[in-house]
Amino acid sequence: MEPVSINEKNHNNEGILLSEEEQEKRKKKEELWAKKKYICQVKLIDIKTGKNIVVLNEEEAEENDIYNGYRIMLRHDGNELVSLVDLSTEMVKRGEIGIFRDVADKLDAKDGELLHIRHMEKPASIDFIKKKLDGESLTSKQMSTIIHELMKNRLSEGVLASFIAAVYTRGIGEDETVALTEAIVDSGEKLDLGVGPVADKHCIGGVAGNRTTMVVVPIIAASGIYMPKTSSRAITSAAGTSDTMEVLADVDFNIPELKEIVLKSKGAMVWGGATNIATADDKLIKLRHPLSLDPRGMLLASILAKKSAVGAKYAVIDIPIGRGAKILDMPMAETLGGDFINIGKRMGMTIESLITDGAEPVGNGIGCGLECRDVMHVLQGKGPDDLRNKSTLIAGRILELVGKVPEGHGRDMSELLLSNGGAWGKMKEIIELQGGNPNVKEDDLPIGQYKHTIKAERSGKISHIDNKGVNKIARAAGAPRDKGAGIYLHRLKGDKVKHGDVLFDIFAESETKLDFAIKAVDVWQPVELEKFLLGTMR
Amino acid sequence: MEPVSINEKNHNNEGILLSEEEQEKRKKKEELWAKKKYICQVKLIDIKTGKNIVVLNEEEAEENDIYNGYRIMLRHDGNELVSLVDLSTEMVKRGEIGIFRDVADKLDAKDGELLHIRHMEKPASIDFIKKKLDGESLTSKQMSTIIHELMKNRLSEGVLASFIAAVYTRGIGEDETVALTEAIVDSGEKLDLGVGPVADKHCIGGVAGNRTTMVVVPIIAASGIYMPKTSSRAITSAAGTSDTMEVLADVDFNIPELKEIVLKSKGAMVWGGATNIATADDKLIKLRHPLSLDPRGMLLASILAKKSAVGAKYAVIDIPIGRGAKILDMPMAETLGGDFINIGKRMGMTIESLITDGAEPVGNGIGCGLECRDVMHVLQGKGPDDLRNKSTLIAGRILELVGKVPEGHGRDMSELLLSNGGAWGKMKEIIELQGGNPNVKEDDLPIGQYKHTIKAERSGKISHIDNKGVNKIARAAGAPRDKGAGIYLHRLKGDKVKHGDVLFDIFAESETKLDFAIKAVDVWQPVELEKFLLGTMR
Repeated sequence: MEPVSINEKNHNNEGILLSEEEQEKRKKKEELWAKKKYICQVKLIDIKTGKNIVVLNEEEAEENDIYNGYRIMLRHDGNELVSLVDLSTEMVKRGEIGIFRDVADKLDAKDGELLHIRHMEKPASIDFIKKKLDGESLTSKQMSTIIHELMKNRLSEGVLASFIAAVYTRGIGEDETVALTEAIVDSGEKLDLGVGPVADKHCIGGVAGNRTTMVVVPIIAASGIYMPKTSSRAITSAAGTSDTMEVLADVDFNIPELKEIVLKSKGAMVWGGATNIATADDKLIKLRHPLSLDPRGMLLASILAKKSAVGAKYAVIDIPIGRGAKILDMPMAETLGGDFINIGKRMGMTIESLITDGAEPVGNGIGCGLECRDVMHVLQGKGPDDLRNKSTLIAGRILELVGKVPEGHGRDMSELLLSNGGAWGKMKEIIELQGGNPNVKEDDLPIGQYKHTIKAERSGKISHIDNKGVNKIARAAGAPRDKGAGIYLHRLKGDKVKHGDVLFDIFAESETKLDFAIKAVDVWQPVELEKFLLGTMR
Repeated sequence: MEPVSINEKNHNNEGILLSEEEQEKRKKKEELWAKKKYICQVKLIDIKTGKNIVVLNEEEAEENDIYNGYRIMLRHDGNELVSLVDLSTEMVKRGEIGIFRDVADKLDAKDGELLHIRHMEKPASIDFIKKKLDGESLTSKQMSTIIHELMKNRLSEGVLASFIAAVYTRGIGEDETVALTEAIVDSGEKLDLGVGPVADKHCIGGVAGNRTTMVVVPIIAASGIYMPKTSSRAITSAAGTSDTMEVLADVDFNIPELKEIVLKSKGAMVWGGATNIATADDKLIKLRHPLSLDPRGMLLASILAKKSAVGAKYAVIDIPIGRGAKILDMPMAETLGGDFINIGKRMGMTIESLITDGAEPVGNGIGCGLECRDVMHVLQGKGPDDLRNKSTLIAGRILELVGKVPEGHGRDMSELLLSNGGAWGKMKEIIELQGGNPNVKEDDLPIGQYKHTIKAERSGKISHIDNKGVNKIARAAGAPRDKGAGIYLHRLKGDKVKHGDVLFDIFAESETKLDFAIKAVDVWQPVELEKFLLGTMR
């Protein structure tokens, strides 16, 4: 949204004569200006907001059919700029326009000068979103137009929320999902390694401590397959892969930097947000947030776009199911898993969907530093068993998918790469390339100095450990921002405990946060012992 | 959203001991503050915005799960305030909160002081809207909660857009519509005349020049029935009833003023926006605007709430259908008409739905002053015939509905009240009570001094006059803001014209606007002559 000089009618900014088509475009633009505009006097608000925002008088704007959150086109001398509208009853009077420093600079407009205002042409997306609300299918072009206008900041929050609601209530078909995926890929940068094979993995999420990525990537890279893994940060959980990897190394890299790392080590674990891949997806996720809407087609597009953007041709999708997981039962998981395979195929990817037991946390540590310790133990050929087993399962399937080993041999190969030090060596290589200390020791990991132990209040067998409760307590203790905050589970599901046995420790970096976490234990009671009497009536 | 002092734990602001329930409420509030908050230093922005708005650092806010458009709770010393969040990357740094003068005053907070911030409890509406998106029905309580939280400004634009989309895609049943209607009534003030009978009318809209209300109200009031008519202003048309009535008298009255007028004259024509009746409806209409969504249940609730809020027990609903009208065909009109009758009955109203021909403008004038002249002519016992006929039809049905005359005699009674001067006398009474000049003459009406005549370019029979085109041209000429701007149709549908005959005149208050309107004629071509050859192929 840089200003465009329109002083020279048939020439561009460098004085070069425009093509007839360009001249026609410019003429149409001038007609738009002639048709509908009003003029306001600048009231400069000398603050930088980092956004193109103007404040209009509410009454006057609405008379001109301009509402809160609309986009309008501004013109001053030869400069044009799209701006977001905020309305005010007091701040600006009729005939005035409040502009912040950012807009003033871009338009070169000074206090008291005049600005021309006109409506933006109605975004084409409006009609397409209406069509989707009416239950019709969108063409690829229509779907990509919506994502394009989203990226150009041309759609208001309300219009975008309507789009999410439309996809949620009406669903999108296979063609529409492919179009959405491709549009999301095109919205951001892409990684083109120029070599292969490139593999990837993804977990639908919801399982505490589930840090398989940090085990899988070193195994796969050690086997000679490229795995440029981008991950997210925690939103509602105690730690995301990026938050956890950050304990050992930097995770903020742009695409050229990522390429350099991966061409050297074959593997990388970076934060997707810094790479600018699939940028439309970040916006879509924020839009889905308030109502926690997660329309299946968008979930598919979101995940597969990130795989496609890094050039992956093979991917394993981990779909945890069970009590407290995002996907509740086998039929739902099978439908979703099948969709991944179909849409993946359309995107040129070979995909395997793994449906896993997601009812309990994986590993003993929950929280960045503690999860990192589990990962390090596994990479060094030790436990925790569940993290190790799940990781070698996933890595094994990737090896088979790519054809690196025959069917049925992937897991053994993965175990070998753990036990022979290959994976740990590769991890150290990746840590160093990502700016960390490759000689990191277990004692270097941040573990909160404030600790509280939760003990069993009676004897019995642990029947369930609740992912959500565990996450809430770890977050109350400071995770994921405090790298040393979290929970260490000393006993897992199926273990028999006696009254007074340690169930788990809470770690925090401050006493206050430790107190918050202790209070959260009362609320969430994450460890359940087997009960035989479930209720009584008389 | 006035600040609440919370200094005294078990006493209210006047020092009176709170009930146990109140104390419990207060305790819960304190627990909310203890659980989740962050503290920021005030950066005062010395501007009045007329809204409670704060600016947070984008990164810091999102780490705290606060997004653009969210509501947060602020606390400073003993004061609390709900504020809308704006995010910025540059304007405020981590640890800062930008607050405008309005918020600073209400919280008594000064530059550099500390503010506590916490999440608002999640609005209950979020779950209900999700439920509606899933196709489930809402209870009355849930529906009224949504409207209540809308009125309290607790729902973001995105959440509200999702509500509109949910109602649009899933529809709402009779019970839900009644609940929505009642909630909208309760959102605003109500008129209780204490006398009766009270009647009302409504037109779905879309027909240019359709000023029947200004003829019907004087007839009905003259017959002895109360008709406190609230109307809207034009949104996309050339003139609304309020805009047109404003030519003759004031239309901005609050409920006590409206009551005083109606108790004296039995009739009134005021702008609904000033009365504060059904205020939730204004907000809902704005929300429906960007995508032009008009879910049937909301349309019904919107209209019937306004009738119910003025205490009307009888109403006639005018549903124009046909080419270019809002309702396209008879079956759609019949469904809508039946819904009005059913929901009306549930609200204690007797309703008659009239399905009328809405394909052509009504009357000769389009635009406030010109429509006012048509109305005056009809009230004085003259033409235009179509406006007179449609008005006496509607007034007649109201008289029959209320039981003022036997079935079949309403129209004659209405004609009588026009021809004997009763209606015009009543109109003069209403004009005077609403602060206008009761002795207004035709020559006093504003008619733009700049005029342009559009003539027939060939001979033929007028087959259609397009409502939308006529509105667009009148608006280009300055309507509804310029009271003298508009169109006067010299020939109507069915008339035979010769090449060069006058079709219509355009009036404007400035030469520039007249030019705009002339250009708009080229685009919209509102008068169509009969064509026999519709296409040719070879």
